[in-house]
Amino acid sequence: MSLAPDLIDFAHTLADAARAETLGRFRQAVETANKDEGGGFDPVTEADRAAERAMRALIERHHPGHGVKGEEFPERPSAGRYAWGLDPIDGTRAFICGLPSWVTLIALLEDDRPVAGIIDAPALGERYSGLSDEAHLDAPGRRPIRTSGCRSLGDARLSTTDPFLFVGDEEARFARLRGAARTVRYGLDGYAYARLAAGSIDLVAESGLKPYDYEALIPVVRAAGGVIGDWQGGDDFGAGRVLAAATPWLFEEAVDILNR
Amino acid sequence: MSLAPDLIDFAHTLADAARAETLGRFRQAVETANKDEGGGFDPVTEADRAAERAMRALIERHHPGHGVKGEEFPERPSAGRYAWGLDPIDGTRAFICGLPSWVTLIALLEDDRPVAGIIDAPALGERYSGLSDEAHLDAPGRRPIRTSGCRSLGDARLSTTDPFLFVGDEEARFARLRGAARTVRYGLDGYAYARLAAGSIDLVAESGLKPYDYEALIPVVRAAGGVIGDWQGGDDFGAGRVLAAATPWLFEEAVDILNR
Repeated sequence: MSLAPDLIDFAHTLADAARAETLGRFRQAVETANKDEGGGFDPVTEADRAAERAMRALIERHHPGHGVKGEEFPERPSAGRYAWGLDPIDGTRAFICGLPSWVTLIALLEDDRPVAGIIDAPALGERYSGLSDEAHLDAPGRRPIRTSGCRSLGDARLSTTDPFLFVGDEEARFARLRGAARTVRYGLDGYAYARLAAGSIDLVAESGLKPYDYEALIPVVRAAGGVIGDWQGGDDFGAGRVLAAATPWLFEEAVDILNR
Repeated sequence: MSLAPDLIDFAHTLADAARAETLGRFRQAVETANKDEGGGFDPVTEADRAAERAMRALIERHHPGHGVKGEEFPERPSAGRYAWGLDPIDGTRAFICGLPSWVTLIALLEDDRPVAGIIDAPALGERYSGLSDEAHLDAPGRRPIRTSGCRSLGDARLSTTDPFLFVGDEEARFARLRGAARTVRYGLDGYAYARLAAGSIDLVAESGLKPYDYEALIPVVRAAGGVIGDWQGGDDFGAGRVLAAATPWLFEEAVDILNR
């Protein structure tokens, strides 16, 4: 790996700073504002903004030339090769429902390509990280993680965040996956990819994801031996349709069924 | 309350014994068998059986006259007024997906009526209990819990375990609730009722529940100030359609919409 180790340590420092802002506010009465004026439900908690502010302050102080793309505030362009993709609370609906599966997503981008990622689950005391071919779970002891060996959809534990958020033909395409999988779990947001990296979920398919939703997931899933791409089997995340699988065989079977 | 305090302590002892069997097996490779010969997915883990065996052994030793109804083994009739309803792992699908929301359900029945309940979430280190008008969360400090003050479906955080498990007109009836609620979370099994009792989920509607799935929930929800009944607004749990709400107003609105 070519990344300076201090950048990896710094990514963990960002996660610590976010955790300090989010965890104490979890399950407290939180002020929410509806930022989606289209009428959908997309709460912004105080915790969300405070955590992004804390991470941005650290980046500005220690790496003033790095770019920052966050969910809550305007993009700050990079003066060089590096930028950070931040989603302080992925799973805001879980957060406001008092469910501990919400995560903080931190991606380190080199020339716009995610090269290291952290999926931090503060309320569970679990931090998943991926860099090159090394993926780890700190909880709090550190151990390497790997995806499961699942090669076939009939054996697969599938997950998606909300079966009613699919648009157009996505619903029917996902329904084919669901019908063929061993079991399905919902509502996990980024945590589903963390458990895929750790070997207890085999397949995740979602749509409508934004860059800050998926950038951190890519290095974690790949470093753990998994495959992550789009619903066509390619690498085009721009449409927001993300497919992640424990093995290349499972990924290929899922792509076939999604595009039958 | 008329229950001997030692019976409440004993319920916690049962939960401790189950936890000792389940927690160490969570996220380990588990042997699963498909006990639902109809073809549905209903894994029985070693943990499930070991935990029920441990609880049954304690009941037989300390309260040999008490009945036991468990999920895994045949019913043992009561010689008196008391019986225990046990579901060692409610949320086996969460368990095999490495998700920490599975719970152990323990109900104390007096003349077949649940009078005390425990919803224990070992992987989260949280135990919810209810007896008469006292509900508590041990995590590990002990504090009293109460349902939220939510009075209206438009403000309600709704949950159900699987939106694709509804049968017949249940799907359309639930879809009306879903369309009117503020947000919906899936896949929580008994943990949804625990969070309802603790005030972060406002409404739960499920069907197909068995006595061991709901008996422990009733005292916890009621002791926390919530309402739990059937989809018609009554008290007939026999059909397995359970509706729980933070307040009587919300319960009534949900019943109206389910039966419109």
